[in-house]
Amino acid sequence: MNFQGKLERIVKNNNSLLCVGLDSDLERVTGKYKKLKHPQFEFNRWIIDQTHDLVCAYKPNSAFYEAEGLKGTLALKFTCHYLKKNYPQIPIILDAKRGDIGSSNKGYVKFAFDFLGVDAITLHPYLGRESLTPFLELKDKGLFILCHTSNLGANELQDLNVIPGGKAAPESLFDSGRARYSLARMTDKIPLYRYVAKRVAEEWNRNGNCMLVVGATYPKELKEIRKITGERTILIPGIGAQGGDVEKTVKAGLNSKKKGIIVNSSRGIIFSENPRTEAKKLRNKINFYRI
Amino acid sequence: MNFQGKLERIVKNNNSLLCVGLDSDLERVTGKYKKLKHPQFEFNRWIIDQTHDLVCAYKPNSAFYEAEGLKGTLALKFTCHYLKKNYPQIPIILDAKRGDIGSSNKGYVKFAFDFLGVDAITLHPYLGRESLTPFLELKDKGLFILCHTSNLGANELQDLNVIPGGKAAPESLFDSGRARYSLARMTDKIPLYRYVAKRVAEEWNRNGNCMLVVGATYPKELKEIRKITGERTILIPGIGAQGGDVEKTVKAGLNSKKKGIIVNSSRGIIFSENPRTEAKKLRNKINFYRI
Repeated sequence: MNFQGKLERIVKNNNSLLCVGLDSDLERVTGKYKKLKHPQFEFNRWIIDQTHDLVCAYKPNSAFYEAEGLKGTLALKFTCHYLKKNYPQIPIILDAKRGDIGSSNKGYVKFAFDFLGVDAITLHPYLGRESLTPFLELKDKGLFILCHTSNLGANELQDLNVIPGGKAAPESLFDSGRARYSLARMTDKIPLYRYVAKRVAEEWNRNGNCMLVVGATYPKELKEIRKITGERTILIPGIGAQGGDVEKTVKAGLNSKKKGIIVNSSRGIIFSENPRTEAKKLRNKINFYRI
Repeated sequence: MNFQGKLERIVKNNNSLLCVGLDSDLERVTGKYKKLKHPQFEFNRWIIDQTHDLVCAYKPNSAFYEAEGLKGTLALKFTCHYLKKNYPQIPIILDAKRGDIGSSNKGYVKFAFDFLGVDAITLHPYLGRESLTPFLELKDKGLFILCHTSNLGANELQDLNVIPGGKAAPESLFDSGRARYSLARMTDKIPLYRYVAKRVAEEWNRNGNCMLVVGATYPKELKEIRKITGERTILIPGIGAQGGDVEKTVKAGLNSKKKGIIVNSSRGIIFSENPRTEAKKLRNKINFYRI
């Protein structure tokens, strides 16, 4: 079964659009787990066992494991193995934000899908479609391309107005019909994040495996992106610790079938007093605004 | 000593602007090394011992190690450790192309600079300056921001014309003085890669630790970027297997002091019949065009 099929089944069975982010920063993993041999893994197992019937996906962020070197990579591997063995119905999204030239991306494909065995990965768009070929060829996997990220400074490049059509007009054309040409071009200008959304929808998604990442902290932009990307799933981080608003996010993000979003919360759930309670609360809150 | 100081010293001592890319794809590591317990590391040690007096840096690409899971991560760690112990004068650039929100980037900082102990890292610009704060704060490290990459499809986003100044003009202004405003804006438009170069030079580089990555396969763009970035070092992959031309690259890339470029070749050297000979040839060829 491909990523989309797996996702749709668990969304239905768990009645959930909630993804729990396994951002298990060792510095924040508490006393009891810290003493164990594999603290990040044991902590994750505890979170997973408490929340598996409330989520539609888990999203470990690779950075928090790589930070601990080999031990961290092992904890990430154990976490993925544990999920696949005990909860094979729940898709795993590796939040790794990779993106290199094609020959190097083959290495990241092996890391994510062979070594860890995840179902989906997050990717940078900056090198363009051609660079992502080793990922795009994987029809059964989920590829989440960064479109508008959740951070405060996301606007610096992502909100820049771009002139689609690539290269500037030839100088001759530009000279002969300057004002008219400028006007035509000005009408076409769109922010970079919307251009990325269009390229992904129109050109990158030939195998039906491309989706987008849009931060909950930008509901207006999320609404625009929903229009461009049609029914495709959008991964939405930024709820909880980062301050995204659940009502605005859900209303802006849902597709016509009242689905099509994966709403992620990491720190707000896993480092709370009671992760199960927090996960249930957020799952239900998301569902409340779906109706 | 900071990255820039370390680099300048080795450039002088080895009379070299050559970086050898340790892209030790296990599938291409040959028979003799493949049988050893740590094939990627043993292969790297062989390459390093043969070339250490010919280079100004080594650049392992993380993807080829992550591809092999824990063994690969261990080989990467061993390689960095070996370099630091035996050739501490040679800077290590981790080609990891990372880029996440700030709290996650802290994890990548730990991976690169604490666990591996490298001197520099490559980074994606898409999330903006604010996201990279945990890196930008490291005054002694080298940060190479992707500007114009070497791959065939780099133009898809990187060559897009953008309108600096961020947001579009307010609609009122746009309506009242449409043609005049359009003209002014049109004059300002620049390709995204040049905007990235400008932002990095003018805003991101407050600690003097930011440099750029520009592919050798785009000498015209390299020349433009040199104008924007001043004397700062540019990391240039794409020579050798990717087809970049040495003469064009060196002539377009050098700064006013006939330095300021790190020219990388990976596969063209490490998988050649005789890596030392190839490294020497390329080092000398680069120097030939420096004069």
